[in-house]
Amino acid sequence: MAVPFEELKVGDRASFSKTVGESDIYLYAGITGDLNPAHVDSQYAARSIFGERVAHGMLSAGFISAVLGTRLPGEGSIYMSQTLRFIAPVKIGDTITATVEVLEKIEAKRRVRLSTVCENQRGQRVIEGEALVMCP
Amino acid sequence: MAVPFEELKVGDRASFSKTVGESDIYLYAGITGDLNPAHVDSQYAARSIFGERVAHGMLSAGFISAVLGTRLPGEGSIYMSQTLRFIAPVKIGDTITATVEVLEKIEAKRRVRLSTVCENQRGQRVIEGEALVMCP
Amino acid sequence: MAVPFEELKVGDRASFSKTVGESDIYLYAGITGDLNPAHVDSQYAARSIFGERVAHGMLSAGFISAVLGTRLPGEGSIYMSQTLRFIAPVKIGDTITATVEVLEKIEAKRRVRLSTVCENQRGQRVIEGEALVMCP
Amino acid sequence: MAVPFEELKVGDRASFSKTVGESDIYLYAGITGDLNPAHVDSQYAARSIFGERVAHGMLSAGFISAVLGTRLPGEGSIYMSQTLRFIAPVKIGDTITATVEVLEKIEAKRRVRLSTVCENQRGQRVIEGEALVMCP
Repeated sequence: MAVPFEELKVGDRASFSKTVGESDIYLYAGITGDLNPAHVDSQYAARSIFGERVAHGMLSAGFISAVLGTRLPGEGSIYMSQTLRFIAPVKIGDTITATVEVLEKIEAKRRVRLSTVCENQRGQRVIEGEALVMCP
Repeated sequence: MAVPFEELKVGDRASFSKTVGESDIYLYAGITGDLNPAHVDSQYAARSIFGERVAHGMLSAGFISAVLGTRLPGEGSIYMSQTLRFIAPVKIGDTITATVEVLEKIEAKRRVRLSTVCENQRGQRVIEGEALVMCP
Repeated sequence: MAVPFEELKVGDRASFSKTVGESDIYLYAGITGDLNPAHVDSQYAARSIFGERVAHGMLSAGFISAVLGTRLPGEGSIYMSQTLRFIAPVKIGDTITATVEVLEKIEAKRRVRLSTVCENQRGQRVIEGEALVMCP
Repeated sequence: MAVPFEELKVGDRASFSKTVGESDIYLYAGITGDLNPAHVDSQYAARSIFGERVAHGMLSAGFISAVLGTRLPGEGSIYMSQTLRFIAPVKIGDTITATVEVLEKIEAKRRVRLSTVCENQRGQRVIEGEALVMCP
């Protein structure tokens, strides 16, 4: 699925949601090598600022990549850049919704600039930032 | 493992390396929902600009998180923000080395700003950017 | 499947075989936290004594556990102890056969002592040792 | 990361901790073929001596391998042998800490003998044994 560059409009939005399971965090730790005890050691995490194991911030950032690469602009997009501010922790069982919205079309280079936000099931922002994507 | 804020110095560096396997890409696709055919459809990918399946840019970005969270500053770090420029594709079998280097210490807030670079086995940069991390 | 203690005889044997894939090694690294570059960094491994990535020795040891727990003595067995000598490396694509053989029945405690061997597809021993198992 | 043989001292210690998740047990079962119902069948396990599903003993043994291969002696170590006594079961959600301690340096062969212990979050030993490792 892809929206052609010509049809993209400022204000277009798309989202993807997933509940973050323990297995997501554990597999992500293995893929990336990030076995920080905040993510995989419940005893350590209980004494940490968050009080329990939390997901890797970058894991939730992947949901932004999922929206950009499969929905808006979609297949064939090339990811140029991303900024990420990690605002709040994601805990096991949280449902994260990544939403992207077209902020600007850069006609000469067939690129779009988008706001990229991840929120949890209570509507609390956990990540915010911007992406720059080249359209197919 | 963690380097105490007091001992961190501008110029301190740490790295982590991993060969990106097909299984990394497939598991990452499942965790994040990013089933963009550029990553998981070899027929589609053969006709794409890269000529073969490529890893998600955000997957390699996770190696940066691994260095920050397990080596420098290490355990107990809180990830505040990250910028990412995706410069070149990562293909199956590429070995990616993520390297972080302390650029600035922000004493008042116990934060450090670091350059964050991912390179492949030929020394070609695939990602560059900066991170801001709160120290334990 | 389980062989009742009364029917077990010295000399009884059972085996399990599996080809070790890259994904096995990568998942095992994530489960255990053993991201030693000898297992997950092909560039590092190329310069190592083995010349390429090798499987974790303990991964192949798991095939012994599989035979003991599912075939001989089988379901309901309780693993008491294991000795392991790691003799040769296991490479991606090697097919490992774990074979256990009853060496002794310890009637009073319903335990059996078994030899435990893992061989590759060329019949080369990669692990040898002994197990002590309490029967159901 | 590796401690050079020359700097290793009797009494040196290192640890690694991880909370054992259901996903660890299930993935480990798939990697090794050890689908013993004690590990993957909650109905069977409820009627067993342990009353619930338990992790494979060999899974926790992998944490020992992780410490040896990534911390002490670290990268480049070659695993020669391991003895394992399985003392107590590991249940889903238990946090296991593997600790290795140098018992002896064998100068002529650049080998070290280490005690290897896994404990749960209550300080109860679940595995004990010894490892022999050749240093890089």
